[in-house]
Amino acid sequence: MSGTRELRHASRLIVHTGEGKGKSTAAFGLGLRAWAQGWSVGVFQFVKSGSWRPGEHAAYTALDEIHRTTGQGGPIEWLTMGAGRTGLRATQDVDQQALSRAGWAQVVDRLAAQTHRLYILDELNHPLAKGWLDLDEVLDVLTIRAGVQHVVVTGRGAPQRLIEAADLVTDMTKVKHPFDKGERGQAGIEW
Amino acid sequence: MSGTRELRHASRLIVHTGEGKGKSTAAFGLGLRAWAQGWSVGVFQFVKSGSWRPGEHAAYTALDEIHRTTGQGGPIEWLTMGAGRTGLRATQDVDQQALSRAGWAQVVDRLAAQTHRLYILDELNHPLAKGWLDLDEVLDVLTIRAGVQHVVVTGRGAPQRLIEAADLVTDMTKVKHPFDKGERGQAGIEW
Repeated sequence: MSGTRELRHASRLIVHTGEGKGKSTAAFGLGLRAWAQGWSVGVFQFVKSGSWRPGEHAAYTALDEIHRTTGQGGPIEWLTMGAGRTGLRATQDVDQQALSRAGWAQVVDRLAAQTHRLYILDELNHPLAKGWLDLDEVLDVLTIRAGVQHVVVTGRGAPQRLIEAADLVTDMTKVKHPFDKGERGQAGIEW
Repeated sequence: MSGTRELRHASRLIVHTGEGKGKSTAAFGLGLRAWAQGWSVGVFQFVKSGSWRPGEHAAYTALDEIHRTTGQGGPIEWLTMGAGRTGLRATQDVDQQALSRAGWAQVVDRLAAQTHRLYILDELNHPLAKGWLDLDEVLDVLTIRAGVQHVVVTGRGAPQRLIEAADLVTDMTKVKHPFDKGERGQAGIEW
């Protein structure tokens, strides 16, 4: 029975990659299940400032508030690397590599402290692709993490070695997209 | 400019299909953006009772409560076809086709009344594949819907004609899944 228990509670390293939609939205949907279980959830956004997630952030902030005021669900920590409080374009002139590394250092700290049970490393594949973060170091940290700490990594172009290290990998494959026929992004759907 | 506005606010028919994970979770993640915009969101679950979404349901219920008590976000309606209040296995002995049709009738009513701005038709592809719902009728209703009403249909095996009718289609492609190596589902991740 202990073998079954271990399997059921195995820490998952999950990757959402591919050219299609749904990589981040599926990660944030997964976070709802974690929240409902009372798990601590950490969101770490490795994105340029223009592509952050205001809708998801508003909803997660509300869910965290529910947890703090009623005890329902779990706590949610949300860290955006680089967007800052001065506005969406605040990071265009700053060092993306330094921001990525500062953000990653936060993830390393939280994993070492076993702060959360679910980590959403949103768009982590972007600084990996740019070479702003060292893939060897990231893989070391993610694969030797202690305890039961689930990690979801999103972003197109997941490195092959990350895919090999992961337990669950989904490729969101674009079949059809309205931008292809000239439509533009809209609030409530794209952000 | 009106052309641009129309394009930006175009009603989307979105399909999440494929064998991989993330079809429903991405739909529920999208619902967070809609909620944050103050949109009315309707969730209609066309699933057998064992596969409903307790985590997402708890989180959406909390978000709807926030809307009703503080005005933040939008209202959320959640209808589960067949699960009923007597327990998860209540539908095993009832007529799945009748339940599917009753659920679909609710969707038809809401679309006619323009009740919601986002509809999550979770696992609608299942009763379509089973023939419990008529594809022609479903396509007629979804393609002639009035106003700006976005619809997300989830489930593996989306009918080709639904894919053709949709604006945005993503195939969640399984690259790797822990069940393949003997792991089992766990709360917080699979439900």
